[in-house]
Amino acid sequence: MSKGNLSTDAYKGVRDFYPEDMAVQRYIFDMWAKTAESFGYERYDASILEPSDLYKSKGAVNEEMVNEQTYTFIDRGEREVTLRPEMTPTVARMVAGKRRELRFPLRWYSIPNLFRYERPQRGRLREHWQLNCDIFGADDYTADVEIIALAHQVLLDFGATPDMFEIRINHRRDMQALYESIGIKEAEIQNKITRLNDRFHKIPVEEYQTLLTAILADAELVQKVFTLVTSKENVSENEIIKGLSELGITNAHIDRTLARGFDYYTGTIFEIFDISGENNRSMLGGGRYDNLTSMFSDEPVTGIGFGMGDVTMRDFLETHKLLPTTISTTAPKIVIVPTDTKLNLEAQKIAHYIRTRDISACVDISTKKIGKKIADAAERGVVYTIVVGTDELQSGTFILKNLIHMSEESDTLENLLTLLIKNTL
Amino acid sequence: MSKGNLSTDAYKGVRDFYPEDMAVQRYIFDMWAKTAESFGYERYDASILEPSDLYKSKGAVNEEMVNEQTYTFIDRGEREVTLRPEMTPTVARMVAGKRRELRFPLRWYSIPNLFRYERPQRGRLREHWQLNCDIFGADDYTADVEIIALAHQVLLDFGATPDMFEIRINHRRDMQALYESIGIKEAEIQNKITRLNDRFHKIPVEEYQTLLTAILADAELVQKVFTLVTSKENVSENEIIKGLSELGITNAHIDRTLARGFDYYTGTIFEIFDISGENNRSMLGGGRYDNLTSMFSDEPVTGIGFGMGDVTMRDFLETHKLLPTTISTTAPKIVIVPTDTKLNLEAQKIAHYIRTRDISACVDISTKKIGKKIADAAERGVVYTIVVGTDELQSGTFILKNLIHMSEESDTLENLLTLLIKNTL
Repeated sequence: MSKGNLSTDAYKGVRDFYPEDMAVQRYIFDMWAKTAESFGYERYDASILEPSDLYKSKGAVNEEMVNEQTYTFIDRGEREVTLRPEMTPTVARMVAGKRRELRFPLRWYSIPNLFRYERPQRGRLREHWQLNCDIFGADDYTADVEIIALAHQVLLDFGATPDMFEIRINHRRDMQALYESIGIKEAEIQNKITRLNDRFHKIPVEEYQTLLTAILADAELVQKVFTLVTSKENVSENEIIKGLSELGITNAHIDRTLARGFDYYTGTIFEIFDISGENNRSMLGGGRYDNLTSMFSDEPVTGIGFGMGDVTMRDFLETHKLLPTTISTTAPKIVIVPTDTKLNLEAQKIAHYIRTRDISACVDISTKKIGKKIADAAERGVVYTIVVGTDELQSGTFILKNLIHMSEESDTLENLLTLLIKNTL
Repeated sequence: MSKGNLSTDAYKGVRDFYPEDMAVQRYIFDMWAKTAESFGYERYDASILEPSDLYKSKGAVNEEMVNEQTYTFIDRGEREVTLRPEMTPTVARMVAGKRRELRFPLRWYSIPNLFRYERPQRGRLREHWQLNCDIFGADDYTADVEIIALAHQVLLDFGATPDMFEIRINHRRDMQALYESIGIKEAEIQNKITRLNDRFHKIPVEEYQTLLTAILADAELVQKVFTLVTSKENVSENEIIKGLSELGITNAHIDRTLARGFDYYTGTIFEIFDISGENNRSMLGGGRYDNLTSMFSDEPVTGIGFGMGDVTMRDFLETHKLLPTTISTTAPKIVIVPTDTKLNLEAQKIAHYIRTRDISACVDISTKKIGKKIADAAERGVVYTIVVGTDELQSGTFILKNLIHMSEESDTLENLLTLLIKNTL
């Protein structure tokens, strides 16, 4: 075996989850699942490997993403495979595949990992996880209201308050109609404006106007588009905004600059923005895609959904100090500390017995000194230790040490456990 | 968008998890986590993407696997990447990377998905998940006892009884010593016998002897090896078997044919076999690998661990009828049934209110008839429905229908929920 020359670094742009980070990850995933399930969403999953064709249909995802940012390769059987860059095509495939057996409307959620070949930067990694929530087979506008309310509730359940973020809403077909109403009828020009709008909040107004002039070459038209895009509409007339406010959600507004990157959206599109000065970026995005399953079938099923990433989620929670300080790794309740390694097996028997009482336990089987073993347990967040020496084994009397209160109790093992169960229940 | 010509099949050899299958998967994962945590193991995770070099060091994994069965490709930045075929090299990398900060002995577990390019067959898919449990930095034999006891406990926690399976134990260095004791000193010959032994339980005795003769070309030596491999040893003298029996585990024995596929094992190796006639195969395997982290560092950390796959686990549970019938998808507690889609928003408000009382709820916003909506809810495992019509909204009196007991309760929404919370808590 070669000695010591191999790097211990993870692959570029992905993360190792040591127990401390894993505990945060699980906290986020568990909360996502809890909120989605409170809305009656059922969990599904699929493999990260997908036939590349899934992303190649016109209108499926986004050409730039497919051509430049996917992990795509040929397998040993000459099949072209892609590591899924996002979940919506997969869930559309699954729904289309069983559309005759499934009962609609369908409410589904998943927490998949997704892959994009990008330059790693803050909030953007090559692998990230996402909460994906979708409703299939419901055209009613209250589906749009519900999916946005769910996204909103996810943030509230983490302890966020509505002043920390805002919901920006737009509509793909409404935008088409608006462009046409001012005489811009060519789809190609409309798309160019949409792509420029996507950068509206990131560039100075002057630059936006210059770039818009480059597209339209007509000062009057540029002014019309600018007015259209920046106008504050009478939002109380928008049924989704109205619906949300009926549910007590008042931090939503129409933003005509909102574009969303994916080609498959057909109706409502929305994003949630972190409006703290520090973060100030999109945390979550989604929309309605009524034709996506038509790739598979002439009987398409309508859909609306969103995706929310774990990296941005964690940044948001850290920025707003919403991560509980009590998140900890899964340290056992009791660590048994043998006074000598010769007693390790006796200590293992005691740990085994403790576990039969539904209390987590393990033995420090190292060669460290007793004091060091107890100190290590305390550092890991373990609550109790029991020292096991020949005296304890002969007398049958053990000392249960509480590492937090620095208190001790001396009794038989059985009595100590009974006491412990009563205290902690 | 192209119409209806794209297949809805998943990539070959991987699975889609529709909600029913996902519920079983979560049941298995949750039990795995619970048992591992009861033994004080801390959860970690990593990306499925690893630099290919991780699997190329001599003694790292298994040459056949790396050369013929991995998913390996070149990324857009000319890096060679592999989808991890197993977790041990990854965890060894992580432990070696932080060996100065971590407190040993370390007990870690993970539930990773793993990839192998194989012909899909029963129990063998191209992607599967595994419970991986490891102890790092403990040479004591009670670490070996503990890790096997943990594997045993996982099966008991699923409701298995010890007569359903057996634990087979062997030792890599013991086997070397045994071969040398009968005059077989060449490592190459020893390895050939080991690889043949791996097939011992799958082929007739005569075939085994013929193949052994092909390796050794000496009838006397063949007989010696055969005796060595099949002898029933006095297991009470083996400290691991003895340790296990002190913990009440009596279905373990020494099996000198046990080989295990990975090159990195150095000491104890073990497998758990399903001994039902139907399944009769390895469900779990593991062993001690004391040099694996030396790929990264001249200060190696010893390790012992096992992996247990989800596909074989589910087969085992189904064969022995151990899957609870109560496993269900995450259907909501209450489905609100509006009598008209015009009332969908009012119904959404009611669902929203119910969720503030910590009860999961959603609205059937479809255009189906009331009876069909209620029947669909019942089929999904929903317990309660509340019909919402103009009468109910005007009077403020609603009917909570229990779909299981087919009983009804009529009252204000608030009183109904108070009643429901009392009944179900």
